[in-house]
Amino acid sequence: MTSPPASVLPDWGPLVDHHCHGLVLTDLDRAGFEALMNEAVGPSPLGTTLFDSMLGLAIRRHCSPLLDLEPLAPAEAYLARRLELGAAEVNRRLMSAAGIDTLLVDTGLGEGVICGPDELAGIAGGTAREIVRLEQVAEQVLRAGTSDFAGDVVARLRSAQGAGAVGAKSIAAYRVGLGLPAAKPSAVELDRALAGASPLRLVSMPVSAWLAHTALELGLPLQFHVGYGDSDLDLLDCDPLRLTAFLRATQERGVPVLLLHSYPYHRNAGYLAQVFDHVFLDLGLSTHNTGALSRTLYAETLELAPFGKLLFSTDAYGLAELYLIGALLFRAGLGGVLDDLVAAGDMTAADGAYVGRLVAGDNARRAYALD
Amino acid sequence: MTSPPASVLPDWGPLVDHHCHGLVLTDLDRAGFEALMNEAVGPSPLGTTLFDSMLGLAIRRHCSPLLDLEPLAPAEAYLARRLELGAAEVNRRLMSAAGIDTLLVDTGLGEGVICGPDELAGIAGGTAREIVRLEQVAEQVLRAGTSDFAGDVVARLRSAQGAGAVGAKSIAAYRVGLGLPAAKPSAVELDRALAGASPLRLVSMPVSAWLAHTALELGLPLQFHVGYGDSDLDLLDCDPLRLTAFLRATQERGVPVLLLHSYPYHRNAGYLAQVFDHVFLDLGLSTHNTGALSRTLYAETLELAPFGKLLFSTDAYGLAELYLIGALLFRAGLGGVLDDLVAAGDMTAADGAYVGRLVAGDNARRAYALD
Amino acid sequence: MTSPPASVLPDWGPLVDHHCHGLVLTDLDRAGFEALMNEAVGPSPLGTTLFDSMLGLAIRRHCSPLLDLEPLAPAEAYLARRLELGAAEVNRRLMSAAGIDTLLVDTGLGEGVICGPDELAGIAGGTAREIVRLEQVAEQVLRAGTSDFAGDVVARLRSAQGAGAVGAKSIAAYRVGLGLPAAKPSAVELDRALAGASPLRLVSMPVSAWLAHTALELGLPLQFHVGYGDSDLDLLDCDPLRLTAFLRATQERGVPVLLLHSYPYHRNAGYLAQVFDHVFLDLGLSTHNTGALSRTLYAETLELAPFGKLLFSTDAYGLAELYLIGALLFRAGLGGVLDDLVAAGDMTAADGAYVGRLVAGDNARRAYALD
Repeated sequence: MTSPPASVLPDWGPLVDHHCHGLVLTDLDRAGFEALMNEAVGPSPLGTTLFDSMLGLAIRRHCSPLLDLEPLAPAEAYLARRLELGAAEVNRRLMSAAGIDTLLVDTGLGEGVICGPDELAGIAGGTAREIVRLEQVAEQVLRAGTSDFAGDVVARLRSAQGAGAVGAKSIAAYRVGLGLPAAKPSAVELDRALAGASPLRLVSMPVSAWLAHTALELGLPLQFHVGYGDSDLDLLDCDPLRLTAFLRATQERGVPVLLLHSYPYHRNAGYLAQVFDHVFLDLGLSTHNTGALSRTLYAETLELAPFGKLLFSTDAYGLAELYLIGALLFRAGLGGVLDDLVAAGDMTAADGAYVGRLVAGDNARRAYALD
Repeated sequence: MTSPPASVLPDWGPLVDHHCHGLVLTDLDRAGFEALMNEAVGPSPLGTTLFDSMLGLAIRRHCSPLLDLEPLAPAEAYLARRLELGAAEVNRRLMSAAGIDTLLVDTGLGEGVICGPDELAGIAGGTAREIVRLEQVAEQVLRAGTSDFAGDVVARLRSAQGAGAVGAKSIAAYRVGLGLPAAKPSAVELDRALAGASPLRLVSMPVSAWLAHTALELGLPLQFHVGYGDSDLDLLDCDPLRLTAFLRATQERGVPVLLLHSYPYHRNAGYLAQVFDHVFLDLGLSTHNTGALSRTLYAETLELAPFGKLLFSTDAYGLAELYLIGALLFRAGLGGVLDDLVAAGDMTAADGAYVGRLVAGDNARRAYALD
Repeated sequence: MTSPPASVLPDWGPLVDHHCHGLVLTDLDRAGFEALMNEAVGPSPLGTTLFDSMLGLAIRRHCSPLLDLEPLAPAEAYLARRLELGAAEVNRRLMSAAGIDTLLVDTGLGEGVICGPDELAGIAGGTAREIVRLEQVAEQVLRAGTSDFAGDVVARLRSAQGAGAVGAKSIAAYRVGLGLPAAKPSAVELDRALAGASPLRLVSMPVSAWLAHTALELGLPLQFHVGYGDSDLDLLDCDPLRLTAFLRATQERGVPVLLLHSYPYHRNAGYLAQVFDHVFLDLGLSTHNTGALSRTLYAETLELAPFGKLLFSTDAYGLAELYLIGALLFRAGLGGVLDDLVAAGDMTAADGAYVGRLVAGDNARRAYALD
């Protein structure tokens, strides 16, 4: 159930983080740090510090040594040392220890707060590729003013593809839930939906559905936020099973659909990855949030998910800590499950290493045609 | 996965049982005992005895020694010895071994069948505080006859507060499901709903919603039955995620909302406790029903739930056995998870003891302002 | 979490497989074999071989030795050896090693592709009894032409009973979901539904509901496909909790309702088996698909399910491998959970053996009145 020491973590080569965000480059006090930790806005006046969580323990355990402290140093001491070293040094130390060499960066969140893909790649010592957030592109087109919304969106997506973007991201989960229709909304339906839409925050099922279908038509691998997130979403509407009709309708196209985070619906996501050719999944946000208990999630996901369909991501945002523990807990969690299977005679050591390399990077390289 | 012997259970001090019921004070034959064991009415003619369950094993293992029998004595022998000793002696032995010193007693069920809070506290050697059941208060007001339902309910709740009640309980899950509206029903909506309502059994979403909003307005911490229960409820309607709109609307008020039992939706309940300031949760009824396998539930709950938001309860009703095994399995289940984390280096021993004390009582004392 | 070696598997006597299908009797190339492995149509062009799964590992580990290969032989070597030995010899070896002596065979699928119950029983060295698939009977009646659909269906079901059928199977999950009404549709409702129905593939809630109610009226134990299946179904509609109203309405009749597969809703199915007298459940299809990780499913199911209500099945179709690993993983999974409970002092060794025998066969013999 718990994580092995980092020293015995498996070496599957450099990781491909297929869904992540930029870093905050400035120093953070305790309130600033806690605001970036998990999906709560901050510590509750009725509760205790956000460090009182599996995530908090994972940060204290795994990041402290990289800041020259003992493992599990108290939160106060950790945050003081973090300020002492300065954000740049902390980011450099944690990112280089994460062992990620390819970062697919969702650029649709946190402009002005976190750094962009190139700066992130520089700090990580890797390369970054862009993932375009569909709802943001749509809002940009509306705010710019347009007489041809569909044409303008397609043009922007093609332009992003030309500039190296390797996929698109839908946040339908946050806006309208995942019950996307099987058929692409018509031009008339789209116009009708846009008539009442706010360009600041598009909340429209026809628009989100049109964007998702359009991304696949353009051949862009399509990420969906699935499951767990902040209190803006209705988690019941974020069960990936709600995508079933959409997936049935889009399978023939042969463009990957990638289910992000998945928790607590990761078994459902694993099922979809088995029965639909084009479905992949990850445990991004869920891994660092559940800390040492994330290993259970990997075991549950592997029950049905084909080994060729599971991906690694951190979904890290803002804090370099989330990159470090995301990568480390992934190696520990998946590695621990595989090690147990090998030890019990349920797979060979070669099988285990092969599966580890698939999930650590090979599956992502195949899905996004990165090579 | 299984429970350690009681001798190595952690000592987190006396427990606060934040949700429980009174005891049957008379002797019970086998049929009477089985009728009180779990959420079945009794053993099925198509199945076997209710002792053939994780709950039955837990009773046989942990309660037998307190009745001078070997652990896991056969059910027949256990029940014979129980009769031999008499209900008063059995209740005394089991309750004093449970180690509970504060009992928040839901008084809305079993009048005339089980004892009241004061008698319960006397047997347990602790103190009892009342939790007022909202639907019962509403039905009492209707049965008494009223020209001002709202005013009379508020008066009764205030009176209970004045007499020491520390919280309210909603059984909306049993009556109408948990899809409570974000807005408090208006006086007109309430009147319309009451027009067709039975004073014997109120089944009305506007009434249940009005009661829940009203309890929070009065500053009463509000318990919701969530998840698993008997065959009267529709478990699909008891997913705590259905409370999302209600929780979003009531967070600002800063009054605790406490999700009871949670199973099999305990991961969802843990998520809600992370993203909403005022949400707490427990695994009451689920702990004794799943017996030695309840440890998995604690591990799954701790994945996302803040350590400052998880509470202990037994949800015991009628049988002192349910108090004893509820308390013991809680210590074993949570303690086992914490011990594993400490052993793996994922938390310090001091961290583990701190978390244990939070859940055993400190969180409840803070949520209900008991001190 | 993983399976013990077969040599230490518990001996609970011959198994009753209460839900299975016939075997393919001809040789299979790789494409033919993979098409029969799991709920995918075949390997995805975006993924890897279907052997890259828990199911694939289980086949390689447990079936290879029976074909004179080392455990975990590569898939290519396994399939070559399978061809070399020939289907008849492979079927004979694997089926006799499975240790199943009674097979309740769903005859509603794969006519002309797989063998019938008698041939299957001959290969297994056991006896077979028929389970009648309700939707198939209804389609046969419609295709034959009828002026009395209800009467003709009842006559066919009575005739099957007379010929030795021991139960009926509903695939409402695949056609209309599990939200069956509490009341049997009237003759008028049935006629109206049949007016627009295709005799090739009946997709009608009133018809599926009428069939299910009718089977129980005739005293036929009624199996429901529940949960996980291929991409034809909408898994959200296959949660057994959707059956709650139907179960509440039919409990009094005292005829068993048996929930098949259950995953990922096996905890929900366990709850239903506790609170409704006539509900039983299994983990058929889920056991072989999750391979060595299936043990977790048994632990989670036993949390609430009465020990007298859980059944064994393989849901094997086409491949003798699925019979072998279904039976072996069942013994390993349930046996592993029981062994752990015994080792921890949570049940006696005699308790463990008793529960094993209940689930391996006694519960099925009681539910279907097989003796």
